[in-house]
Amino acid sequence: MNIDGLGEFGLIERIREGEGALPRGIMGIGDDCAVLPQRKGYKTLVSTDLLMEGVHFLLEDIDPYSLGWKSAAVNLSDIAAMGGRPLGSFLAFALPKALDSKWMDDFFRGYRAVSGLCSAPLLGGDTTSSLDRLCICVTVLGECEDGHEVLRSGARPSDKICVSGTLGDSAGGLKLILGGLSREGAGERLIERHYRPVPRVAEGQRIAACGATSMMDISDGIGSDLRHITRASGVGAVVRVKDLPLSEELLSQSALYGWNARGLAIDGGEDYELLFTMPSDALRNLDIPYTEIGEIVPGEDILWEGASSQEHKGFRHF
Amino acid sequence: MNIDGLGEFGLIERIREGEGALPRGIMGIGDDCAVLPQRKGYKTLVSTDLLMEGVHFLLEDIDPYSLGWKSAAVNLSDIAAMGGRPLGSFLAFALPKALDSKWMDDFFRGYRAVSGLCSAPLLGGDTTSSLDRLCICVTVLGECEDGHEVLRSGARPSDKICVSGTLGDSAGGLKLILGGLSREGAGERLIERHYRPVPRVAEGQRIAACGATSMMDISDGIGSDLRHITRASGVGAVVRVKDLPLSEELLSQSALYGWNARGLAIDGGEDYELLFTMPSDALRNLDIPYTEIGEIVPGEDILWEGASSQEHKGFRHF
Repeated sequence: MNIDGLGEFGLIERIREGEGALPRGIMGIGDDCAVLPQRKGYKTLVSTDLLMEGVHFLLEDIDPYSLGWKSAAVNLSDIAAMGGRPLGSFLAFALPKALDSKWMDDFFRGYRAVSGLCSAPLLGGDTTSSLDRLCICVTVLGECEDGHEVLRSGARPSDKICVSGTLGDSAGGLKLILGGLSREGAGERLIERHYRPVPRVAEGQRIAACGATSMMDISDGIGSDLRHITRASGVGAVVRVKDLPLSEELLSQSALYGWNARGLAIDGGEDYELLFTMPSDALRNLDIPYTEIGEIVPGEDILWEGASSQEHKGFRHF
Repeated sequence: MNIDGLGEFGLIERIREGEGALPRGIMGIGDDCAVLPQRKGYKTLVSTDLLMEGVHFLLEDIDPYSLGWKSAAVNLSDIAAMGGRPLGSFLAFALPKALDSKWMDDFFRGYRAVSGLCSAPLLGGDTTSSLDRLCICVTVLGECEDGHEVLRSGARPSDKICVSGTLGDSAGGLKLILGGLSREGAGERLIERHYRPVPRVAEGQRIAACGATSMMDISDGIGSDLRHITRASGVGAVVRVKDLPLSEELLSQSALYGWNARGLAIDGGEDYELLFTMPSDALRNLDIPYTEIGEIVPGEDILWEGASSQEHKGFRHF
């Protein structure tokens, strides 16, 4: 690998210098492993995601800042979904020759912007060359107090089903990008939601502390993701489709282009909002914005109350 | 992604089933994150490596069992190099369509064979498709007692420089593979050393417990890797080239093909043996096989005592 004359070690040095001081007791880039202290009464959380050019993104469609942001964000979102606090990230990438140091700098600006927002320093990784396509693998470590991790398996009948933020915006943004449609005004906001999702880290910790019985982040669309919770918990669910939270921007762009906004909210992926269940007593104490969209019921089926036949087919990556 | 009719979730389920029971308190595949307990007085170690088809391996040259083995081994070796105990691994891969479930099964047999040897269960990962080339990213977590992690920066003048095992075998194996030479007898052993390196996990823990002042694993060749230790420690070194440990197999194949065995030992990469420094008093108590090859000295230069001009040029990945 050679980026504008920087070899592997030069590039690593440059990345390390950009990182600044690490939290006390943590050792990052520069040895065989990164080293992090363990604390009695805590658990370590780990998540990893691989992003391939041509499958997860197209270099001609996404700017390097947004790609850097999104690479870190989708993993930080997994820590948020457990109710955890991020500790740091590990970035491994394979670079094709076509990318120069300006591209790399912009990528790292985006990566660091969202990492900074979540207090998750870059602690290590791997840099290598690729014959053709860019490949990015991010691993994030987090922690939470023992027993406070929120799994997918704890939902119980009569728990309320809730989500943070609004749904379908990212899918709307993707439609604008792929259709070559206007990126002005409301469109710009949807595209931002697609390219630069904000991991709901603070919200996840609040939701966990408040007594959520299950939680996950919405990456494939709630139509597909809610099934992970019902299956893991051995329960069914009723979702009131009319209560799904839709943004003004998604509604206005849907009216303009004739999209089915609710369909995008159900089946569109990559919202990276939190989907969680909580008994109604506990929910009263939750002091972050959220929307109640339904209830956990006995059984194993999910009823999409009020959905048209086009609005609940589920989204698959593959 | 679709492997013989298995979609993403089917494949993940199959991988999870193959994994068997996890150590108590650890939660692996199946939620947003894996969850591991933390212990007072311990530190977490993390290392990650990305392997790209066409750069790190050629699918026509390496069998899937060996590729699975090596993908896990090179990361486990980083935990060994800190004196740590592996806790588990995370495997993210992007699969081209050409690979079938037989290939995947063989890959996982190799991955699990070396992981089992090191007591490092597979705890999570990511599966995705690739347009053309296979891409593999492995992250390994380990732990060690607080203050017992062996860094690269602790070498002091008069410390002895030592290595585990023999050097250059992997480079010899690679020469046989690339040259299409005989894989019989001694050749088979060298090729095994190249394809299926054994992480020196037990050795690393013994070396750490015995009082090593610095340690790393030899991945680029000692000619290049020793410099990481001298630079990080702010010292120089004298290496007696005649004392470098060479295997019978490397010597016999070198005689047969006219290779410079010492050159391969210095500059050949991927031995995954341990390079460490230790005061001579402490070294007397070290009860694993090792070879003393030189001494740390003041200054910053490395003297390769007795090396010919072809024997110390250093190896670079890029």
